[in-house]
Amino acid sequence: MGAREFTRGRRVVARLAHGGDLLEEIAAVAEEHGMRTAELRAIGALQAARLAFYDQSAHEYGEFAVDAPVELIGLLGNVSLKDGAIFVHAHATLAGHDGACVAGHVAPGCVVFAGELVLQELVGEPLEREFDEVTGLALWRDL
Amino acid sequence: MGAREFTRGRRVVARLAHGGDLLEEIAAVAEEHGMRTAELRAIGALQAARLAFYDQSAHEYGEFAVDAPVELIGLLGNVSLKDGAIFVHAHATLAGHDGACVAGHVAPGCVVFAGELVLQELVGEPLEREFDEVTGLALWRDL
Amino acid sequence: MGAREFTRGRRVVARLAHGGDLLEEIAAVAEEHGMRTAELRAIGALQAARLAFYDQSAHEYGEFAVDAPVELIGLLGNVSLKDGAIFVHAHATLAGHDGACVAGHVAPGCVVFAGELVLQELVGEPLEREFDEVTGLALWRDL
Repeated sequence: MGAREFTRGRRVVARLAHGGDLLEEIAAVAEEHGMRTAELRAIGALQAARLAFYDQSAHEYGEFAVDAPVELIGLLGNVSLKDGAIFVHAHATLAGHDGACVAGHVAPGCVVFAGELVLQELVGEPLEREFDEVTGLALWRDL
Repeated sequence: MGAREFTRGRRVVARLAHGGDLLEEIAAVAEEHGMRTAELRAIGALQAARLAFYDQSAHEYGEFAVDAPVELIGLLGNVSLKDGAIFVHAHATLAGHDGACVAGHVAPGCVVFAGELVLQELVGEPLEREFDEVTGLALWRDL
Repeated sequence: MGAREFTRGRRVVARLAHGGDLLEEIAAVAEEHGMRTAELRAIGALQAARLAFYDQSAHEYGEFAVDAPVELIGLLGNVSLKDGAIFVHAHATLAGHDGACVAGHVAPGCVVFAGELVLQELVGEPLEREFDEVTGLALWRDL
């Protein structure tokens, strides 16, 4: 286990655009405010979604679609750097009309119906991702 | 997408009253500490629950009851102003004895068994809700 | 309902060790940074998990195993003192390859595949747990 201390920076609350892509909307807020490392949380609703599951043996993501309106029960994640650019990593729990849940790694293709986002900047040496041989994932280096 | 920067204010940790209504308990903490805009998180357990799903076509919430004790796996939400009064918006994931999940928009009628709440005040121009024609929801204005 | 105000302290971001026990990894970060009261959030993936449900009548936890790799959709919880030692209380939502969810109180035996943790120290009179007659749980005292 490795850890790094940060100073808290700006805290931004955003209303995500109706019809926008969830990941793109979050990245846009981070870009606009020049945040390279941040923590994020959101609730809202999606018109449709695409989530992913990481196969820990095959080392590849498998995506699946949620072709129905759903509540965005909770989105937890972070912003850090990957290949020098802002990269959003987030996981979401979604629920249908009867409360039935589906959850996963957020992929492109989650269409916002309404969304309330909080982005908490973390000031310090930025977190940067690089390929990790053991997991096959882009994890934070020097940590 | 619209966004607003806030200064962090007070951070309050609360133990929710056994038998209390989840939304009322949260609003009481916010009222007592004079918070008009805040972010919230909680874990705990509920004796029973009422959740809701927003019908994106009909523009109305449909509520459903959870008539059993459940773990409050996670509550994410915020406090802002609606018609000048404190308004709590929160989404919850609940789980039964075998880990089966149900989730939704938190409605009145969630009875606390035990609850650990963190309320993070956001200092700045308060977030205010007003009716949004496109979604039929009370969303943050000027954002 | 009782509440206490805290000053924010250090914010630590950690990469959890592949193969480590989730609760032990979190406690190790808190110990290493000398945090007695903190809030925590994490996302990642687990190789296997053990969760628990609290029986509100019998006043006992029942554990169940998740014998498959899962996404760690979200972990919410806190660090406080119990019998003078650091105690981690956390709830998790997990998801399988098709997004199917299982959730509960995190027990020992959750094996980390990859994990991104944020630990937010809360500075003030530390939160201490003690036995609560009504619920049978170790809840925060003087609150």
